[in-house]
Amino acid sequence: MRAAGSFIMPTLRKPYLLYLGDAQHPTDAKTACGLRDWCNADVIGEWSLPEATVSVGLERVAPADAAARGAGSLVIGIASVGGKLPDTWLPDLEAAIAAGLDIVSGMHTRLTSFPTLVAAAARHGVQLHDVRHSSQTFPAGTGRKRSGLRVATVGTDCALGKKYTALALTRALAARGAKATFRATGQTGIMIAGEGIAIDAVVADFIAGAAEVLSPDNDADHWDVIEGQGSLFHPAYAGVTLGLLHGSQPDYLVLCHDPTRKTIEYRPDFPIPALTDAAAQYLQAARITNRGVRLAGVSINSSSLDDTAWAAYRAQLEAELGVPVGDPIRDGLGVVADRLLALRRG
Amino acid sequence: MRAAGSFIMPTLRKPYLLYLGDAQHPTDAKTACGLRDWCNADVIGEWSLPEATVSVGLERVAPADAAARGAGSLVIGIASVGGKLPDTWLPDLEAAIAAGLDIVSGMHTRLTSFPTLVAAAARHGVQLHDVRHSSQTFPAGTGRKRSGLRVATVGTDCALGKKYTALALTRALAARGAKATFRATGQTGIMIAGEGIAIDAVVADFIAGAAEVLSPDNDADHWDVIEGQGSLFHPAYAGVTLGLLHGSQPDYLVLCHDPTRKTIEYRPDFPIPALTDAAAQYLQAARITNRGVRLAGVSINSSSLDDTAWAAYRAQLEAELGVPVGDPIRDGLGVVADRLLALRRG
Repeated sequence: MRAAGSFIMPTLRKPYLLYLGDAQHPTDAKTACGLRDWCNADVIGEWSLPEATVSVGLERVAPADAAARGAGSLVIGIASVGGKLPDTWLPDLEAAIAAGLDIVSGMHTRLTSFPTLVAAAARHGVQLHDVRHSSQTFPAGTGRKRSGLRVATVGTDCALGKKYTALALTRALAARGAKATFRATGQTGIMIAGEGIAIDAVVADFIAGAAEVLSPDNDADHWDVIEGQGSLFHPAYAGVTLGLLHGSQPDYLVLCHDPTRKTIEYRPDFPIPALTDAAAQYLQAARITNRGVRLAGVSINSSSLDDTAWAAYRAQLEAELGVPVGDPIRDGLGVVADRLLALRRG
Repeated sequence: MRAAGSFIMPTLRKPYLLYLGDAQHPTDAKTACGLRDWCNADVIGEWSLPEATVSVGLERVAPADAAARGAGSLVIGIASVGGKLPDTWLPDLEAAIAAGLDIVSGMHTRLTSFPTLVAAAARHGVQLHDVRHSSQTFPAGTGRKRSGLRVATVGTDCALGKKYTALALTRALAARGAKATFRATGQTGIMIAGEGIAIDAVVADFIAGAAEVLSPDNDADHWDVIEGQGSLFHPAYAGVTLGLLHGSQPDYLVLCHDPTRKTIEYRPDFPIPALTDAAAQYLQAARITNRGVRLAGVSINSSSLDDTAWAAYRAQLEAELGVPVGDPIRDGLGVVADRLLALRRG
């Protein structure tokens, strides 16, 4: 078994051209919106087929023009139903490859399953990145304590803001002069960061080991802000959640929640516990690899609440949990970053 | 995503010829011993290279003779350091293939990585089974409640008797007239059962889904006895443990422990909790997919204790945990089977 240090994460080539294919529904462009919002400086523009009716509001730039302006990759910014990559997109992808762009995809269908793309990429010396899949091997977890500071986002359910929370917290820490790195564990996060590990695509035995590789030893005052996955309370994905948590060995947790969710999404028979209970269970699990772990904040998707209701809910949670509560979109997570830095100063 | 019912576990072809290669250390033959002890009626004999110094006490039968006597597979019964399959074994494996035997291996090195074996298997119409690896795809877990009864073995650490406990419990249930099936989740267990899923080889997102496939709907009075993996308290493997537990949705747990282990094996910085605490944490985790889950027994590897010490320890644990305590090797797990059947009758 190799040492963790010998595992290297592939790096995506920025800046990006965002590709929207033939998108008809704004929600299909979720990935493109995430890239526009969270790594805007790395995005040159958007491109799509003539039949597309969706835009993410960026300048339209053809692949060859994007390459001439210095783009490194065309990124598929669509998360379509079923994750299939339609044949009608291939001419645009081939044009991008011919212009010297790498192709980055988070679709279920692998880019490498299209022989014409593989051949074109070889011919033009560019890479095809299927960030949803993993061709890497990882070591088993060791549990060895690593240097540097780690904060992990954890959630009461899937898809309620763990990535946005980690991104907003990284920004807030950096804005306060702290050294902070967002550590991506899902495909959109990997595209935003330009690197990371799709943790749910790793072979089960190596979940924690992959998470150890993701946040290696670092400066004593450096923060790794690790994107959580799934939920301890989800009947399908809790194994991924726990292995990622253990390998991350976080010093601090930020618990993410959406108050409109009373049960796990798409699984109405599975209740979400009260936040105090959820926090206690996450802390208990995290203590396996970091006995000093503490809750540092709560991140709420408060979009369902008006200002009055949000203020009341926030005050209630702060009283119950004893930590700052924020919404990464509504007001950022400066309060949580302040708490982290204060806890650190002791 | 396909329905769980469309996923079929491959079945190994019994009876077996056990192959010991050039084994020099009795502990290398752990897999062969497990097969001899737990599916003796399915084992025709053993075979090895002339330089081997290890035997598991069975009749020596050459591959061609084993085939003539009805053997279905040659099973590699060695777990060597590093899990590498030496080239010097290939002539014996090729002879077995030529005689019409399938080859079954739990080594890290895949049988299918040897072109000569692949070609020979194709020529003779036999299968190469790498039970440590998974070429199957699985659905995500649904959490849907399945019919039938389920008991899962869980442990305070790896490698302390979860498989033997599940096997002994299956035997004890069957001896009492109950319908019971051992559900294998690791390579030796799969060889013993002739089927199963190497749960730690599954892609992380599908751990629970694979466990759901492993123990499908069954008769209301049928027991699936599910082999646990890893430990909730292990810094590398707890994700596998939790996903398997959730997908198994057990009605009952049997907690396995070795009193000589105070810390996780090979990881002295990771303490093993007290058994009452371990049981509580397992029950809390299992409640996600089965709110009625109960502890039904404790299974101890008591080999370090003399009869007096064992009696005292057992009495102490029974008082502390309120369930029967047994040792699958020392006295079988009849007491746990009795408790399960009594709990069932209500």
